[in-house]
Amino acid sequence: METDLKTLLNKVASGQMSVSEAEIILKKKPFTDIGYAVVDDHRGLRNGVSEVIYGAGKTVPQIEGIINTMMENGQTRILITRLSPEKADNIKAPGFEYHEEGKIGIIGGMKEPDGIGKIAVVTAGTSDIPVAEEAYLTARFLGNDTVKIYDVGVAGLHRLLARLDDLMSARAVIAIAGMEGALASVVGGLVSCPVIAVPTSVGYGASFGGISALLSMINSCANGISVVNIDNGYGAAYQASLINH
Amino acid sequence: METDLKTLLNKVASGQMSVSEAEIILKKKPFTDIGYAVVDDHRGLRNGVSEVIYGAGKTVPQIEGIINTMMENGQTRILITRLSPEKADNIKAPGFEYHEEGKIGIIGGMKEPDGIGKIAVVTAGTSDIPVAEEAYLTARFLGNDTVKIYDVGVAGLHRLLARLDDLMSARAVIAIAGMEGALASVVGGLVSCPVIAVPTSVGYGASFGGISALLSMINSCANGISVVNIDNGYGAAYQASLINH
Amino acid sequence: METDLKTLLNKVASGQMSVSEAEIILKKKPFTDIGYAVVDDHRGLRNGVSEVIYGAGKTVPQIEGIINTMMENGQTRILITRLSPEKADNIKAPGFEYHEEGKIGIIGGMKEPDGIGKIAVVTAGTSDIPVAEEAYLTARFLGNDTVKIYDVGVAGLHRLLARLDDLMSARAVIAIAGMEGALASVVGGLVSCPVIAVPTSVGYGASFGGISALLSMINSCANGISVVNIDNGYGAAYQASLINH
Amino acid sequence: METDLKTLLNKVASGQMSVSEAEIILKKKPFTDIGYAVVDDHRGLRNGVSEVIYGAGKTVPQIEGIINTMMENGQTRILITRLSPEKADNIKAPGFEYHEEGKIGIIGGMKEPDGIGKIAVVTAGTSDIPVAEEAYLTARFLGNDTVKIYDVGVAGLHRLLARLDDLMSARAVIAIAGMEGALASVVGGLVSCPVIAVPTSVGYGASFGGISALLSMINSCANGISVVNIDNGYGAAYQASLINH
Amino acid sequence: METDLKTLLNKVASGQMSVSEAEIILKKKPFTDIGYAVVDDHRGLRNGVSEVIYGAGKTVPQIEGIINTMMENGQTRILITRLSPEKADNIKAPGFEYHEEGKIGIIGGMKEPDGIGKIAVVTAGTSDIPVAEEAYLTARFLGNDTVKIYDVGVAGLHRLLARLDDLMSARAVIAIAGMEGALASVVGGLVSCPVIAVPTSVGYGASFGGISALLSMINSCANGISVVNIDNGYGAAYQASLINH
Amino acid sequence: METDLKTLLNKVASGQMSVSEAEIILKKKPFTDIGYAVVDDHRGLRNGVSEVIYGAGKTVPQIEGIINTMMENGQTRILITRLSPEKADNIKAPGFEYHEEGKIGIIGGMKEPDGIGKIAVVTAGTSDIPVAEEAYLTARFLGNDTVKIYDVGVAGLHRLLARLDDLMSARAVIAIAGMEGALASVVGGLVSCPVIAVPTSVGYGASFGGISALLSMINSCANGISVVNIDNGYGAAYQASLINH
Amino acid sequence: METDLKTLLNKVASGQMSVSEAEIILKKKPFTDIGYAVVDDHRGLRNGVSEVIYGAGKTVPQIEGIINTMMENGQTRILITRLSPEKADNIKAPGFEYHEEGKIGIIGGMKEPDGIGKIAVVTAGTSDIPVAEEAYLTARFLGNDTVKIYDVGVAGLHRLLARLDDLMSARAVIAIAGMEGALASVVGGLVSCPVIAVPTSVGYGASFGGISALLSMINSCANGISVVNIDNGYGAAYQASLINH
Amino acid sequence: METDLKTLLNKVASGQMSVSEAEIILKKKPFTDIGYAVVDDHRGLRNGVSEVIYGAGKTVPQIEGIINTMMENGQTRILITRLSPEKADNIKAPGFEYHEEGKIGIIGGMKEPDGIGKIAVVTAGTSDIPVAEEAYLTARFLGNDTVKIYDVGVAGLHRLLARLDDLMSARAVIAIAGMEGALASVVGGLVSCPVIAVPTSVGYGASFGGISALLSMINSCANGISVVNIDNGYGAAYQASLINH
Repeated sequence: METDLKTLLNKVASGQMSVSEAEIILKKKPFTDIGYAVVDDHRGLRNGVSEVIYGAGKTVPQIEGIINTMMENGQTRILITRLSPEKADNIKAPGFEYHEEGKIGIIGGMKEPDGIGKIAVVTAGTSDIPVAEEAYLTARFLGNDTVKIYDVGVAGLHRLLARLDDLMSARAVIAIAGMEGALASVVGGLVSCPVIAVPTSVGYGASFGGISALLSMINSCANGISVVNIDNGYGAAYQASLINH
Repeated sequence: METDLKTLLNKVASGQMSVSEAEIILKKKPFTDIGYAVVDDHRGLRNGVSEVIYGAGKTVPQIEGIINTMMENGQTRILITRLSPEKADNIKAPGFEYHEEGKIGIIGGMKEPDGIGKIAVVTAGTSDIPVAEEAYLTARFLGNDTVKIYDVGVAGLHRLLARLDDLMSARAVIAIAGMEGALASVVGGLVSCPVIAVPTSVGYGASFGGISALLSMINSCANGISVVNIDNGYGAAYQASLINH
Repeated sequence: METDLKTLLNKVASGQMSVSEAEIILKKKPFTDIGYAVVDDHRGLRNGVSEVIYGAGKTVPQIEGIINTMMENGQTRILITRLSPEKADNIKAPGFEYHEEGKIGIIGGMKEPDGIGKIAVVTAGTSDIPVAEEAYLTARFLGNDTVKIYDVGVAGLHRLLARLDDLMSARAVIAIAGMEGALASVVGGLVSCPVIAVPTSVGYGASFGGISALLSMINSCANGISVVNIDNGYGAAYQASLINH
Repeated sequence: METDLKTLLNKVASGQMSVSEAEIILKKKPFTDIGYAVVDDHRGLRNGVSEVIYGAGKTVPQIEGIINTMMENGQTRILITRLSPEKADNIKAPGFEYHEEGKIGIIGGMKEPDGIGKIAVVTAGTSDIPVAEEAYLTARFLGNDTVKIYDVGVAGLHRLLARLDDLMSARAVIAIAGMEGALASVVGGLVSCPVIAVPTSVGYGASFGGISALLSMINSCANGISVVNIDNGYGAAYQASLINH
Repeated sequence: METDLKTLLNKVASGQMSVSEAEIILKKKPFTDIGYAVVDDHRGLRNGVSEVIYGAGKTVPQIEGIINTMMENGQTRILITRLSPEKADNIKAPGFEYHEEGKIGIIGGMKEPDGIGKIAVVTAGTSDIPVAEEAYLTARFLGNDTVKIYDVGVAGLHRLLARLDDLMSARAVIAIAGMEGALASVVGGLVSCPVIAVPTSVGYGASFGGISALLSMINSCANGISVVNIDNGYGAAYQASLINH
Repeated sequence: METDLKTLLNKVASGQMSVSEAEIILKKKPFTDIGYAVVDDHRGLRNGVSEVIYGAGKTVPQIEGIINTMMENGQTRILITRLSPEKADNIKAPGFEYHEEGKIGIIGGMKEPDGIGKIAVVTAGTSDIPVAEEAYLTARFLGNDTVKIYDVGVAGLHRLLARLDDLMSARAVIAIAGMEGALASVVGGLVSCPVIAVPTSVGYGASFGGISALLSMINSCANGISVVNIDNGYGAAYQASLINH
Repeated sequence: METDLKTLLNKVASGQMSVSEAEIILKKKPFTDIGYAVVDDHRGLRNGVSEVIYGAGKTVPQIEGIINTMMENGQTRILITRLSPEKADNIKAPGFEYHEEGKIGIIGGMKEPDGIGKIAVVTAGTSDIPVAEEAYLTARFLGNDTVKIYDVGVAGLHRLLARLDDLMSARAVIAIAGMEGALASVVGGLVSCPVIAVPTSVGYGASFGGISALLSMINSCANGISVVNIDNGYGAAYQASLINH
Repeated sequence: METDLKTLLNKVASGQMSVSEAEIILKKKPFTDIGYAVVDDHRGLRNGVSEVIYGAGKTVPQIEGIINTMMENGQTRILITRLSPEKADNIKAPGFEYHEEGKIGIIGGMKEPDGIGKIAVVTAGTSDIPVAEEAYLTARFLGNDTVKIYDVGVAGLHRLLARLDDLMSARAVIAIAGMEGALASVVGGLVSCPVIAVPTSVGYGASFGGISALLSMINSCANGISVVNIDNGYGAAYQASLINH
């Protein structure tokens, strides 16, 4: 950016660019304001990932409006998370496809894996699968070779140990668990790559909608573990993808 | 008690016992009031275990007073928990011995194992050892064959698996862990006997003095686990001993 | 297992078994993977109890799939917990029966009591009965002589004292209470066997869905009490059954 | 006050009182401002109880200053709560006496019982005694016949039942307990007078400095119980005294 | 009871009563077990108040069953709290009347005031009225002269001060408030009788369903205040009635 | 008021006013009691703002009753907050208009800006807009020039920086954000006017219905920030209007 | 800033300024980096207030280093908050004076009041005074006419009402209270200017170090109240000063 | 490992290895048990990082014992975290050096950077520096090029923006902040690499020893952020190092 600034100023000094042009460039907003949302046209450049639409709390017309703005700005691949089946049914957009289990909508299809290695998505139980699918689909959309290892909770260690090869060959592991969240610690002790732990709201009684699992994971005695928000499969996959690229 | 009541009434009916005598017996208090404490002389009979003195928050003279009352009532074996080294140094009682690591005082010595099987005391880390020693000494005092399995936290599963034989031959397991408390779930999945989980106040940050471990253990996805209070090694050993007898 | 390992290695050394066969045996998974769940075929052997299906959060086809896999593996008695009446109506399985009050489905019927003694299931109020029935039915399914003592909360002590005989003759007591959970402490002081306390989500205001009762029970001043998760009647009965066998 | 207002206005109308005098009376502050504290000279009249000094967080000179202001205003009996022995040693005031166990200072001595009945102060354990003494001394200072029933926790019901006569003849009961606070519910079920429950900070682990007991008591299933702040023996005695007068 | 025991024993001694008869009397349960509930027939005698039915979580047949049992035992006046309009519509019982705003059902009508003084029921806002009506109707049912002072929250002090006469002439005040619960402290500073504070679940955001108000009231800096559970209008009125009688 | 008092007393002294008249005036309530609510007729004078009706938890007839009382007392402009569309449809009142996005009803129309400067209403995301509209409409109703700056969360700083001119020219800023609430700190560091922060209940997982944002804002390291309740757009606008006037 | 940018670019275009000069100006850091702290030299300009040093957690040499950097940059008036007496004793700086009660250090003396009106600092009790002094001294330092109204808690309403004139003539009120924090609501209902509420950590038991007061204040039913962090007298005064200027 | 197993079995089959030798290898424990700790000799191989000693809660002799065991097993580089200056003074070990600010002891010196890129350690304030130093030293020890960016909190955005070049060229960013923890979100929006957020216990009042910051960070609206435990600089650096290698 330093270079760009100097180049621009040199152009002004040499008369190649007018003061007005320079002023416009220096002040130009890298986004489009469509009233109810400010669509960030440059995020793909800045952050290495295209714009993602958080579907919860947005109406179908709002989502379509944001999609249109993005496509007009040349975006061809779009991810929509937390999209209920009801909304998905009503969305009209070219190339839109919906994955119900992970509540994910995708425009532009999955991306061929271009990451360095593999991401493993591991769950403790079957009830953690919706969160896992959100993570799995996001990781795939972002161009990662991704493997699922589901229902391998620590109360039956042999199930987890049987999948050790898959686990140990991953470049990043997403460990998803509710209840007591012990899976993250056990996985963390087994692998030598970063583990992104996702607490889920699965459980009852004193699980407090995921807080018990969140605390377990934050307090893990194993190395190399960090934690994202409860049920945040998308966020875990996003970071795992950054690590893998 | 039903029988006793009938017997007593029969004696009254037959004149073998006066009304006054019967009244006294029916109302007699099975304990000694020494002002600052009510010493329960019959607990050994009722609960199968002798009186235990909770040492924290009692002065040396108070502890000695309770010991004396108990001994006068024929009690020969007494356990004192949460007894600081400073207090222990000043306690004068025949046959008193002090175990500093578990902060346990004992009068009347350990009891020969008379339980059915073995109790295993397992800890996740070295910092859990003081709680473990409280449990170990209590279990020994109550007449249990007891084995220690320390520092086998789940971040290094192989350490725990190496002690599987000891674990699986126990009749009750006391699983002690701080931080994320995952040890209880993993042990619970491995053994077929009851597991008493003890959260410890070991940890920092979001471990909240043991709450994180307590929640983990209460929410355990493994079967056969129940939980006692944070750092309550004594309580866990007490229940394990009941199970083993 | 030590013996098995030596035997196997001897067979390899003597050529009775090929290297590949040995490798397969050493790595073979003791469970069946049916996609959405990993059914543990050996748990009956390892833990002394057959597989139990946690019905909440599973669809009817998923539950039936798991039942089928288990039956194909020779399992004849299956317990399904947290099963709503709506799901129960739709489950097709030979010998399936449903107990609505405890939300329990059973295949293969109750087991004749083969435990050592009796389990007492005690509740403070009538609203605790659904949790109590989950515990009662589980205890019966696992082969325990079980007695119900309902609505004997501590605000009317005489009701509890009137059932003292039943209580004191039990080998394990399951004490179930919401609100302030005082029942566990009072029962704990009366009996000489282990007490498994179950906080329930019964109550309003500051009962916080069972947290108040959970804290009460964890902090109980009585000996021999341990606690399971809020409303976890199944877990309490499972542990009580372990104690009783 | 209605009468007073009319009287005063009549005096103004009839010229017996000047407008200025009336204005002054209508606006006059019924207290003395001594800079760091506003001493309420009329509280004895309004609330039926003399001013009480909360000793914690006040220096010895501040306490003495408030005492002097009160005495100058004709107050002869003063209660000082939460007064550390160190401060008590340095307080100079005529007739001052100090009760260390309850951390209470008193000027003007105890008051002869002039209440209607008796107040019972009950504790679960010996560690609750400091709070109980604060309540006992306050109740005595306020002119109540008061009886102590200490160390009768519910884990040994017979100890409590043995004191039933004392309990049931009280006009108000102050039930003091830490840990799980079950005492309040049991007492509430036994007596037919109001029970003021005082949670104490006694306990460890998940007792959270009295919160567990507070929640227990607030959620009590027994009738006629209300709760004051943790360790607030003074507040309980104050209300019990209001009830008894 | 002491006398009764002696009399009974005398009768046994003199042959006026057989051993079996005495045994039966000494063991006879003072309640009726109707399966799903244990109806306490003697509570009216012991506690001075008739049995009250907590309607929430009970079916209409269960409620009717309890009513019948009570009436068969001679009870003529019954209070049913937390009774939804839907249930109330279906209850068949002689003399049953329903008060929807307080969700209270009554059999046997209100009782003529026989208390010593008056109870004041005060609320901070209009949304607190349902809780206030539960308190008001309970107080009336229990035979208390009761006055309503509604919508006098502290954000408009003049509204409260305008009702000072009513407030100050009460023998017990029930102060009901949600949100920040400041009403209790202000009222506590104005009156010289006991104040029972009832936090309500009214509010939003950080009011946490009444916890904020509960904490405010427990921490009140005014004297003579004690607190019952969130929304527990019944409990407050019960205690206020005990105080007033 | 001092003057008024003197004037009145002078009138009494001089016979211009009778004692009864004076008594009535001194005691007259500055509000109208309509049973379920006490309408404060003088608040416009005392607080500089007309009466506001909190619509949640009031029925349509209640709201209309309060409106009528206010209009009869000469109030011409009324604000109704938290008014659901269903209720709004049924309210009959002259000049009533409804703004659905902010759930605000208004009688008497918006007020011409008469404040000193401008209020800026800033949100982090699109989901915060309902709270923002409540704030915006309230600020407008109270006579403030108000500007909206929506969807400028800190994860895309350039969006916020692009609106710096609007922000820095405001006299008070209302910063509205859910999730981690970082917007308030960043805005607080950029402007030199007071910032009123409003946490919103937007978010999921560990956002706890706005608590996470509330804690963030209360702990802000920037100067000049204070916080109102979760989702309390009205309260923030009310205070911002006080600042601006 | 828009103008400045154009001016600068015009200068570059016209050769009045070299490209390098322009680049430096556009990139120049408005602060001094002294290793352990980045001193913000322009904050006085941007925010209208000089730099303030948060003394807690900084060593005396660090504080002196920051003072020196500021003075070298021309700052003549500096405020140091949370400065312990021990540190204050050792600080060497020209014109440094220390106010122990508010733990405030000041260089350059108090500023003559140049605000529009008056700020009132109100406390509920004497224990809130240290926080009040922090607020009072900060307000004075920032050039505000400030009045103290201490020890006027709502349990004795008459004390507060006696100071109504002072309260009602303020342009901003800082209401400081611990325990139940009711003062803020009552004050908020009395005045027509913004109220900044400061919860204090004063209290015991369930006051949780100020959380109870914080919740009370955030939930206040009065209008025009916003809240700062627990014990944050400085922050409240800072915002009150912004309002007053 | 699969290969190893086959190789070993082949050796047994071919007689190159005896059955006993194979059995020993298959069962040999890859760690040394020294009583109070189980030293994991193979962790360097398994996890790619040498053993790290958590110094808190271990005595000097225990730490030395563990160091000796490790060195005897060939380990030459050892990291000791949370090591107090007092303990550090007494540790005798060849090549031991101590870094007080980060409370880190190191044996074997720093490692030459062999990671792919650079790690940036960013703090919001000066009080976060101890945690930052723990992270910085750990990252250096693990062979990472590491840059410090301290005291750039979001209340002065320009300070952060001035270090954008350093930030944006990092391969992993460790964002360390207490109080409201907003730094993580802002940094997350600026960079395109993974951000590991570390909440610190810095702050007062409602910061709750780091919980407020932890919640902020977990709820961050920016992508690519995950969180470790409060004050866990070591854990963050460990994961950042995994990402960088």
